[in-house]
Amino acid sequence: MNAANNSPAVVGTLGPVKVIGAGLLGASLGLALRSAGVEVQLADASPQALALARDLGAGEIPDAAAAEPAIVVVATPPDVAAIAVLEALRAHPGAVVTDVASVKAPIELEVLAGAVAVERTLDVSRYVGSHPMAGRERSGAAAAHADLFAGRPWVIVPHAGSAESAVLAVRTLAADVGSAPVRMGASEHDDAVALVSHLPQLAATLVATRLVDAPEEALALAGQGLRDVTRIAASDPQLWSTILVGNAAPVAAVLRQLREDLDQLLEPLDRSAEHGPDAPGATGPLAQAVAAGNRGVERIPGKHGGAPRRYSEVTALVPDEPGALARLLAEVGEEGVNLEDLHLEHSAGQRVGLARISVLPAAAGPLEKALERRGWQVVAP
Amino acid sequence: MNAANNSPAVVGTLGPVKVIGAGLLGASLGLALRSAGVEVQLADASPQALALARDLGAGEIPDAAAAEPAIVVVATPPDVAAIAVLEALRAHPGAVVTDVASVKAPIELEVLAGAVAVERTLDVSRYVGSHPMAGRERSGAAAAHADLFAGRPWVIVPHAGSAESAVLAVRTLAADVGSAPVRMGASEHDDAVALVSHLPQLAATLVATRLVDAPEEALALAGQGLRDVTRIAASDPQLWSTILVGNAAPVAAVLRQLREDLDQLLEPLDRSAEHGPDAPGATGPLAQAVAAGNRGVERIPGKHGGAPRRYSEVTALVPDEPGALARLLAEVGEEGVNLEDLHLEHSAGQRVGLARISVLPAAAGPLEKALERRGWQVVAP
Repeated sequence: MNAANNSPAVVGTLGPVKVIGAGLLGASLGLALRSAGVEVQLADASPQALALARDLGAGEIPDAAAAEPAIVVVATPPDVAAIAVLEALRAHPGAVVTDVASVKAPIELEVLAGAVAVERTLDVSRYVGSHPMAGRERSGAAAAHADLFAGRPWVIVPHAGSAESAVLAVRTLAADVGSAPVRMGASEHDDAVALVSHLPQLAATLVATRLVDAPEEALALAGQGLRDVTRIAASDPQLWSTILVGNAAPVAAVLRQLREDLDQLLEPLDRSAEHGPDAPGATGPLAQAVAAGNRGVERIPGKHGGAPRRYSEVTALVPDEPGALARLLAEVGEEGVNLEDLHLEHSAGQRVGLARISVLPAAAGPLEKALERRGWQVVAP
Repeated sequence: MNAANNSPAVVGTLGPVKVIGAGLLGASLGLALRSAGVEVQLADASPQALALARDLGAGEIPDAAAAEPAIVVVATPPDVAAIAVLEALRAHPGAVVTDVASVKAPIELEVLAGAVAVERTLDVSRYVGSHPMAGRERSGAAAAHADLFAGRPWVIVPHAGSAESAVLAVRTLAADVGSAPVRMGASEHDDAVALVSHLPQLAATLVATRLVDAPEEALALAGQGLRDVTRIAASDPQLWSTILVGNAAPVAAVLRQLREDLDQLLEPLDRSAEHGPDAPGATGPLAQAVAAGNRGVERIPGKHGGAPRRYSEVTALVPDEPGALARLLAEVGEEGVNLEDLHLEHSAGQRVGLARISVLPAAAGPLEKALERRGWQVVAP
């Protein structure tokens, strides 16, 4: 059984594609394109990194007789991406050039300014920035995988002078490796990732930092809420410091907005600490703050990028033994119910877990009854 | 098949147990005790709430001939808990009395002060505070369930004058309903829940609040990180404002510590925004901040309350169809591998999900190979 073959049937990208930078993203892109039948040429400043990516099957090292690339993808570290884009525009006068750095406005500015400064004949209409939002917990070609982009958004970031044909070429390449292309301006992109990616990272880091000196007894009371909020605080410090300095202004702006909201929370808390829980102006503002959070979280799109849907949760006790959760989910499947989401919840000191199964609201009641009939302990959420 | 019968074989609690307050916690406790064979007496200021809890099977409404309770559990709203504890100590001079409010120091203070003020003969050695850390997304007896406490910590909070026999009685009751008793002082408890429960709630709320006015295009880029960080921001505003005012001083204190850390993040971000990503003193402090978060999150105990263990993750693509995830997990079980944790990850626009399976490090390599052999697409984490 091929469990999840989501390679597209028709590949639109005309090769060869030259990938400059054979790290995780570059090598993964090479693997993905080659598995789609597209010719890939590899380049890297490090001969060793280059040889590794080639040996892993990510592409060939082009010789003098190699065909001119139709597309060049710059997958270098972000601090040299603009220079690499300018070099690629110059070296391959027929090619569309893109980069995959996670911050877009500074690179766009550097490319356009560099093109004007260096030589006026450089055709920047062939340049289109982009940002595949693919996982990067590990780095290097050794961690590369053809499925890295599957199901992830790939933001396409044209500048004012980008040719529509170049935009289409990058968009097609993104779709060919299984990602979902989204079009955006550079500042719009940088503000968006500051909000939906960099801010939650810093919030998780800030909460986790408070645990460093916490008593062990307090940590023993940790529930699923704390685990969820701090999960991404385990991210790589070097990688994240680079991402954050690269997008410093938008990140600082959204962090300041959060601090203003935080200060507004402290007022009713202080009032309540001083004058008791019934103090006027304590409960009301706190309830309003939590309600604002309710409205925010409801705006996050649901699965498949559609409008947010509210699922109902069915919660069952699962013994901690191999196959128990699988048995539960198999029986959910036998009832014809599609699982929309699943959370496992563990508590300290117990060899039993709670499986929280999200299903369409209409399916929840019948599923609860069916599971109880099948002998599962369905519990209050 | 009884999937998860984790009721203890031996019940230690000697009834009758009188439960004052027939809301979610009180009614659930009644159900749990009765299913363990313990006699339960119910009381509530609202005759309607009382009748509902009785009709649901949570206990009996005692008449004049009813036996004296051995234990009284006060499960009223927290603002009247201390008064109810004092009344119970007076009305039942032989009973151990506990309350289940989520904040402990103010109630302890009010009980001890009240006992001294009202009558010096009141034996407060029979009072032991407690806090079952059970889910409370819904309220009222209608949402009650005998399994509400299963696998959850139940904090036992004796005051300086509590009798050890009273502590033991409360501890035994907690264990009898399937929870894991933990002993702590009142301030220690309140500081602990401010840190591990109230702070993550507010952090989630603050991040989610930033989404209220965000462009839809930005929200479309939301990944699993944002979803995890903001999940609990969907909590009930009224419930949470009551919890927060009840523990205002410890919550404000830990929130101020977080704000100090936040201000320290803004410095290198501002430096970088002004002088570029290579500015001295930009990358270093940010990397140190993320590294501090790493250390904090590593301190959260693993499953079963043991020391934190680092699991390895095996990630597989799962098609979005009924039974697919169950099939995957069944095959994981067939390989004899115990699942330690599971995250489902969805991306916008794709009808495929990523199942991130946590297993013991030694099992990860063999499992990856086995799943690939079985036709699953295992992907880079």
